[in-house]
Amino acid sequence: MPAHFTPSPRIRRSPYFDATVAAGVTSFTVYNHMYMPTSYGDPMGEYWRLIRGVTMWDVACERQVELAGEEAGRLAQILCPRKLDGMKPGQGWYVPVCDHQGVLLNDPILLKLAEDRYWLSIADSDLLLWAKAVAAERSLDVTVGEPDVSPLAVQGPKAVEVMIDLFGDQVRSLGYFHFREAELDGIPLLLARSGWSKQGGFELYLRDASRGTELWNRIKEAGAPYDIGPGCPNGTERVESGLLSFGGDTDAETNPFEVRLGRYVDLDAPDDTIGIRALRAINDRGAKRHQLGVVLDHGAKIPLHDLHAQVFRGAAPVGKMTTNTWSPRLERNIGICLVWSGVIPGDTVTVELPEGKRIEGEMRELPFL
Amino acid sequence: MPAHFTPSPRIRRSPYFDATVAAGVTSFTVYNHMYMPTSYGDPMGEYWRLIRGVTMWDVACERQVELAGEEAGRLAQILCPRKLDGMKPGQGWYVPVCDHQGVLLNDPILLKLAEDRYWLSIADSDLLLWAKAVAAERSLDVTVGEPDVSPLAVQGPKAVEVMIDLFGDQVRSLGYFHFREAELDGIPLLLARSGWSKQGGFELYLRDASRGTELWNRIKEAGAPYDIGPGCPNGTERVESGLLSFGGDTDAETNPFEVRLGRYVDLDAPDDTIGIRALRAINDRGAKRHQLGVVLDHGAKIPLHDLHAQVFRGAAPVGKMTTNTWSPRLERNIGICLVWSGVIPGDTVTVELPEGKRIEGEMRELPFL
Repeated sequence: MPAHFTPSPRIRRSPYFDATVAAGVTSFTVYNHMYMPTSYGDPMGEYWRLIRGVTMWDVACERQVELAGEEAGRLAQILCPRKLDGMKPGQGWYVPVCDHQGVLLNDPILLKLAEDRYWLSIADSDLLLWAKAVAAERSLDVTVGEPDVSPLAVQGPKAVEVMIDLFGDQVRSLGYFHFREAELDGIPLLLARSGWSKQGGFELYLRDASRGTELWNRIKEAGAPYDIGPGCPNGTERVESGLLSFGGDTDAETNPFEVRLGRYVDLDAPDDTIGIRALRAINDRGAKRHQLGVVLDHGAKIPLHDLHAQVFRGAAPVGKMTTNTWSPRLERNIGICLVWSGVIPGDTVTVELPEGKRIEGEMRELPFL
Repeated sequence: MPAHFTPSPRIRRSPYFDATVAAGVTSFTVYNHMYMPTSYGDPMGEYWRLIRGVTMWDVACERQVELAGEEAGRLAQILCPRKLDGMKPGQGWYVPVCDHQGVLLNDPILLKLAEDRYWLSIADSDLLLWAKAVAAERSLDVTVGEPDVSPLAVQGPKAVEVMIDLFGDQVRSLGYFHFREAELDGIPLLLARSGWSKQGGFELYLRDASRGTELWNRIKEAGAPYDIGPGCPNGTERVESGLLSFGGDTDAETNPFEVRLGRYVDLDAPDDTIGIRALRAINDRGAKRHQLGVVLDHGAKIPLHDLHAQVFRGAAPVGKMTTNTWSPRLERNIGICLVWSGVIPGDTVTVELPEGKRIEGEMRELPFL
């Protein structure tokens, strides 16, 4: 797909846009109606820097849906089939958001800023519309909107060193998915220990879009001793680590149990939680599909397929491979599959790539690494 | 922004994708989580073919939100602040969809297929989530989903000739925005007289995604005597014609009155119509902004700006230019503005382009042509 990307006023620039262009961004995708960098021209270098060093990512497209007001907590609980009773300000929790049939609509991080203020830090769907509709239809005393907040991720094993240099030693004690308010040269932020990789890292939730370039450059400068470089949410590392890509690994019928999010569903969540009755029923009868990895028996690197590939066990179609990658650490082609629940790790399958090529593979538990 | 586009399983291919690649597509955007072609490498040729001849567009990304069931009509009315009483099967109506505060969420064409089946043929936002939430929260007897429907537009003054050759003379009598069921070599379609241009044309709502290439080639063949060529929703023609680009010309506060959609709001729509009370109040006090055109006083072609440009009258900021283009027919740079209601046609303004250049302009009524 050797095609260019057409800019449009319909698609928003990130506050880091100019900085990423200066840093040599070579490709984009669109995520939540915003450009998101996907490469700076050196995919292998960007991968290894994430695995061994530290990278900085423009993930401003991870937009926030803010719930603010007296009943913000009540709305959060209505939207999330995970019991939120024990949640404290300063915590972020991974939550599936489902429709009334239990179908996954998004897989945000829910940040509790205060008893009356929450952010849903969203994947790629207009969850703002969903939350707005529910709030209004239930006449809740809550305002739903998109605040001026744009995350910048600092990811990789050396990210913590960069953060300590910037924010001091207390950074070490910040728990996973926890966050606190912070400032850098007067730039207002939330500093969170989070990010869409399993290499460790932080997200700086910039709270003033006018200061994107300034923040980018400040991080770049602080990271220089650690050889920080620009990077992006990494399609290879996330497959190795088994991270979910909402919209990529899911379809119009996917429920949380199918994609390893069952642990974030509390079946005893309040009865007025959207989807909870459907999720209880699905849990009772067992999900029809589940998510597994596949290791493909093919020496050469298979390019990323943006189409789902059919998966067969013997002659029977059993599901689809939703993404694939060449793993530099495993030195194998691997993929993530959504398959019939009867397919188990160890099974031999055949994956039919969109161009027709058939490749043998073996099912594995996720994550790979 | 000379960057490439990264394919992703998160972004869907249109059923016409292969055909557009074969036709030489050179760039894409993303619209409703789907690739949409934006050029075949000859922008001026594509423009003039639309104005003088006939072009075919992959607009599968114009997805449908289907309302099906006993209370489909009731849900449609709840979602649309335009009175739908008089609507007949076979008609399509342009409708603003607003939130409870009267803010525009989308500007679809509502197609009435039957008393118990409607499609909202949507612009670029996940209206599916909105409609699903409202239907479920009001416990309506209606199913909301996205059917397998993918429009292919045939646009331009000669489009009618192509359609007559394919479907017979009765095509002439099809009213604007009206549609009927049709077949082409057994390919199931809705044939509608519609499309996102003012050059006349049709949309073929393909109802079987597996037959996209077949339909594309059938149209290409039928159009050959009329020199049909591949094209795309045309950013220049739509500015000349004053067509709204939702998400591009609108922002998080835009109401229908601000963007010339007031004529599609019926203030006496039922009280349980979402947003109607807010819209009545806005109408009473008058909208603060309105949409006008601007003709820029600059000889050279100004490239498209994907950022909004500030507009000043004298020293006072009065709004923004939301898009701009070089009009080959007017031989002028023109733009669409969202400005304070006190700014009127004939006013002289200054537009500050994102890179800082300031250009004089004169406000005009829309459309330009």
